[in-house]
Amino acid sequence: MGIRIGMGVDFHQLVEGRDLWIGGVKIPHTKGALGHSDADVLLHAICDALLGAACLGDIGVHFPDTSASFKNIDSKILLQKTFDLITAEGYSIINIDTALCLQQPKIKPFVPAMQKAIAGILGLREKDVSIKATTTEQMGFVGREEGLMAYATVLLQSVN
Amino acid sequence: MGIRIGMGVDFHQLVEGRDLWIGGVKIPHTKGALGHSDADVLLHAICDALLGAACLGDIGVHFPDTSASFKNIDSKILLQKTFDLITAEGYSIINIDTALCLQQPKIKPFVPAMQKAIAGILGLREKDVSIKATTTEQMGFVGREEGLMAYATVLLQSVN
Amino acid sequence: MGIRIGMGVDFHQLVEGRDLWIGGVKIPHTKGALGHSDADVLLHAICDALLGAACLGDIGVHFPDTSASFKNIDSKILLQKTFDLITAEGYSIINIDTALCLQQPKIKPFVPAMQKAIAGILGLREKDVSIKATTTEQMGFVGREEGLMAYATVLLQSVN
Ligand SMILES: [Zn+2]
Ligand SMILES: [Zn+2]
Ligand SMILES: [Zn+2]
Repeated sequence: MGIRIGMGVDFHQLVEGRDLWIGGVKIPHTKGALGHSDADVLLHAICDALLGAACLGDIGVHFPDTSASFKNIDSKILLQKTFDLITAEGYSIINIDTALCLQQPKIKPFVPAMQKAIAGILGLREKDVSIKATTTEQMGFVGREEGLMAYATVLLQSVN
Repeated sequence: MGIRIGMGVDFHQLVEGRDLWIGGVKIPHTKGALGHSDADVLLHAICDALLGAACLGDIGVHFPDTSASFKNIDSKILLQKTFDLITAEGYSIINIDTALCLQQPKIKPFVPAMQKAIAGILGLREKDVSIKATTTEQMGFVGREEGLMAYATVLLQSVN
Repeated sequence: MGIRIGMGVDFHQLVEGRDLWIGGVKIPHTKGALGHSDADVLLHAICDALLGAACLGDIGVHFPDTSASFKNIDSKILLQKTFDLITAEGYSIINIDTALCLQQPKIKPFVPAMQKAIAGILGLREKDVSIKATTTEQMGFVGREEGLMAYATVLLQSVN
């Protein structure tokens, strides 16, 4: 059967003095996501879902946070590299569905730009890249605005 | 390829003085779920998974908690509206799998009634609606019984 | 359509004086996972994903933590029993993707052994069993090393 499932989950702290990159888009906010790269939680979850579906390890294996070459890197580059990896294995993407968990800000106005950025890199239609968002109803580290998290699921198919 | 994946996650606080609706069923308990609607965490996660698979936005887009028309609404109505949306896009549901995370009460006795309620709305067999449950082993806001959360995954296929 | 989706999530506390079993492999660490069985969070998440895809209930239904017969049991036996259950229903596994969330230790060196153990039980190739890992960036109960959690997703197909 030429179809495969993948999932990813990622977490980042929210701190002052950093930019908030989500889904390849810079979001105006008082805090940003902390990480070795630009800390784009949504793109990282998608990378992990793609790598997982192709059984190619995880984002930490391919883009270690101990490597100077990935310091403050734009995660769109990591997504492009991930796409190249799964393409080389003979896979194409059927669709992606994601959920972002953060207390604020509202990301809805930025969803179309995120879809465009991601679909552009992955050679998909925007309708094949779903981005949803929810708060955690003030609970936990997301609810206290200490951090944010993202989930991604994906279906791949073998091109051959 | 006429198959698509979707996922959803939802969170609600547990408070005294509210009913506990899960999976369309009212569960006897000392606390209930807080929210603008009836706060049915399982139905909301399923709605989001269905909307995500069809790339139709999320539950907050379609049923905003700022709208008086959804105040205290039965989430079975939201699930029906969601089903209408994906049906209008030409999708049918293959199967749904869910996981409910709550410390207590035990929901196992209510699972068949939940499956019947959900399958009835979505035109599925009960064996196509899986409902699982786990505690978080006393950890986090779920473990402290401050809230509950639910995950849902779904496969859709194009009818055409 | 002969394809079905499943997902699982599991949680265990980390405490001193217990072994740390993950993915069927014993990991050297100062703490271990607390539970009625060997508390293998990854195998439990996979069991739940398989049961959920086949709509056969959950791990708590089949292997209750109130049963003396499952006390300290090797979770590889639970995975074998789960596999027997889904096989009896006429399902085979397409692929599995998982994500382990724990702050430490690094599990990367143990991933090949985990893949071998799981693939061996489930009659899969190792490339059909993906194991990814992430920290939660020091946040929440996982970040405080009070516990660990695992997610699993799976696709099944009907053999018939
Ligand atoms: Zn990340
Ligand atoms: Zn909700
Ligand atoms: Zn467990």
